[in-house]
Amino acid sequence: MARLVLKFGGTSVADINRIRNVARHVKREVDAGHQVAVVVSAMSGKTNELVAWCTEASPMHDAREYDAVVASGEQVTAGLLAIVLQGMGINARSWAGWQIPIRTDGQHGAARIQEIEGSELVRRFGDGQVAVIAGFQGIAPDNRIATLGRGGSDTSAVAVAAALKADRCDIYTDVDGVYTTDPRIEPKARRMNRIAFEEMLEMASLGAKVLQVRSVELAMVHKVRTFVRSSFEDPDAPGMGDFLNPPGTLICDEDEIVEQQVVTGIAYAKDEAQISLRRVADRPGVAGAIFGPLADAGVNVDMIVQNISEDGTRTDMTFTVPVGDLRKATGVLEAAKDEMGFDVVQAEQGLAKVSVIGVGMRSHTGVAATAFKALAARGINIRAITTSEIKISILIDAEYTELAVRSLHSVYGLDKA
Amino acid sequence: MARLVLKFGGTSVADINRIRNVARHVKREVDAGHQVAVVVSAMSGKTNELVAWCTEASPMHDAREYDAVVASGEQVTAGLLAIVLQGMGINARSWAGWQIPIRTDGQHGAARIQEIEGSELVRRFGDGQVAVIAGFQGIAPDNRIATLGRGGSDTSAVAVAAALKADRCDIYTDVDGVYTTDPRIEPKARRMNRIAFEEMLEMASLGAKVLQVRSVELAMVHKVRTFVRSSFEDPDAPGMGDFLNPPGTLICDEDEIVEQQVVTGIAYAKDEAQISLRRVADRPGVAGAIFGPLADAGVNVDMIVQNISEDGTRTDMTFTVPVGDLRKATGVLEAAKDEMGFDVVQAEQGLAKVSVIGVGMRSHTGVAATAFKALAARGINIRAITTSEIKISILIDAEYTELAVRSLHSVYGLDKA
Repeated sequence: MARLVLKFGGTSVADINRIRNVARHVKREVDAGHQVAVVVSAMSGKTNELVAWCTEASPMHDAREYDAVVASGEQVTAGLLAIVLQGMGINARSWAGWQIPIRTDGQHGAARIQEIEGSELVRRFGDGQVAVIAGFQGIAPDNRIATLGRGGSDTSAVAVAAALKADRCDIYTDVDGVYTTDPRIEPKARRMNRIAFEEMLEMASLGAKVLQVRSVELAMVHKVRTFVRSSFEDPDAPGMGDFLNPPGTLICDEDEIVEQQVVTGIAYAKDEAQISLRRVADRPGVAGAIFGPLADAGVNVDMIVQNISEDGTRTDMTFTVPVGDLRKATGVLEAAKDEMGFDVVQAEQGLAKVSVIGVGMRSHTGVAATAFKALAARGINIRAITTSEIKISILIDAEYTELAVRSLHSVYGLDKA
Repeated sequence: MARLVLKFGGTSVADINRIRNVARHVKREVDAGHQVAVVVSAMSGKTNELVAWCTEASPMHDAREYDAVVASGEQVTAGLLAIVLQGMGINARSWAGWQIPIRTDGQHGAARIQEIEGSELVRRFGDGQVAVIAGFQGIAPDNRIATLGRGGSDTSAVAVAAALKADRCDIYTDVDGVYTTDPRIEPKARRMNRIAFEEMLEMASLGAKVLQVRSVELAMVHKVRTFVRSSFEDPDAPGMGDFLNPPGTLICDEDEIVEQQVVTGIAYAKDEAQISLRRVADRPGVAGAIFGPLADAGVNVDMIVQNISEDGTRTDMTFTVPVGDLRKATGVLEAAKDEMGFDVVQAEQGLAKVSVIGVGMRSHTGVAATAFKALAARGINIRAITTSEIKISILIDAEYTELAVRSLHSVYGLDKA
């Protein structure tokens, strides 16, 4: 017997028929003797509808009231799934965030979970009851509903799993696991059996949109073994209830991954823009003077490259932002041009970032050189490079994205089964 | 300065534009210096959608989960109205039933309000804050959401008004008041300025579907002055903010009605069926033996007429039920025929009940005779009569309904302005 948290997203609970399918996944685990908590999102489209009403009501709406309105979507799904489970003879009960309670901080609209009181749920596990929990929400110190921000149900699920000391958190989604790269670009992409938390964090933040980044951070901190798997497979197909090796990808601690590969995945992000500031004064504090105002304006600055200055007084500063932030970024920079002390702002769109990820590269040399050579062999020009312990990111022209992803996927041996 | 509770039903909050109109009614009262609490229903159609999902999920759904799902509709409206009010510069805050809290009994799906903790709302009135309260809901002793049954938002509003010791409870609806009879039948029907609680109770239960019966009972018990008025009039039209005499009908204590009329209104109910039991044993306990099983089966028995028996051993028993309950009623009766000791069950459909209502008839004689004469003059056959202190109900063939209503409306002088 184990304790499991299962999470189902909006497309998995889009209508009553799909909720019935979700209930079959739950029943399978209950029948296997496990203690089960289920975390659900709103039916797909519902959250958008509720958000649109808030915006129509007032473009500058109060976050507390936004939360009260928007959190209702998950409340509905939780109640409906409890009803379906009861109809299948399963003892089930729905829980809104305030009922458990899931306590958050006071950042309405983008709250962070601070504490989950799991004792009542655990007591009811003892009576064989399944807890169906409304995701995406908790209760703030002001006794008002708080939501965790879009995609927050993943975070709810991992936090509940941590609080309940669950053996595993299964994230059921519309893909059947985490792949070595995007299968739409590289058909040879393979589903990984396991991926380390740190690697998944890089994959998630780089655009492999399987899991919300915050949920992976939380899973890493609390060492919650998190399983990404498909909700659309037949719940009773062979192997689906296999406790040790269900079909999907386990996100876990590095130590759990026996056959460590140097590189585990290739991620990419299109729609990057590059901003270059020419002849910036090369003195202490200049980077803060530039990036402080951008951060204040909510611009998401990514790769930052500063060249060594030639004459010791002036340098060039290059960084990337999402194309959607470009206009705002250049506006901020032009407005503060005198203060920042640079000559020219140059902006370029139509770029992409490809990234090579793997915890194994910590202990291996030559990983970056392999990437550079592979891209050079295809005639792909490298515009900028940044590296971390477990990641190499390369900025290229967007038109080469697919070619670059395929070349890197191949050169690190990820094509092979 | 007064303290007001305003209630708006589903059609009044059907979309954001209508919610804006509701907000203008609220703003008018706030600008006049009043302390305001607003009770809202779900956007029209939403409750039906949520109920349909519950039924699709399982026909025999658990009432607790039904409540969790269905109560979300009012939560959404309350948040949206708070947002709109804030956008108009009004300090407003939404409240779900569990937040106030509005405590109910444990009858999920048809709960009764037991206690409302109004102190926090009153404290915030002192800060100039408007409370926007989700109607139709409260929290049961098991710490789960409970709903009050369909139409329960009227009851919420009156209960909140009683708890807050409000000066008035304004029920905004899609009609502009209570009429002396149905204006679709009698164009000369006039809007009453005032009607006594007892009269309204008879009008409401007899099919003048302006207010939920329970809300009128509650208003009578707690002496909550309740105003029925239209939400669709221009909120800023002349007189709308008149504290003493706003346009609409005040439901109040008899003592407040100075120019008492003998008869104040004519109500009717179509789709009545009549059941006659022939040659029932005329002995003590026989009525209980008949109506007990019908009550247990949930049959809504209305007019009961028992004739004096001719020979002292057998009598006839006649009563009415809604046509929808007829099959169930005859089933119950046939099944218990031997026990009840009657010869034959006769059932007849296509009947209607017209009722003459007025607290003034307590102190006037000849009111019933006037009705009987008026109907006789039109050739309308009377099938059964029941009377109470303030009401005469007459069972007739349904095809004469409109003629009977018009005749009675005229004969009691209600046509005159």
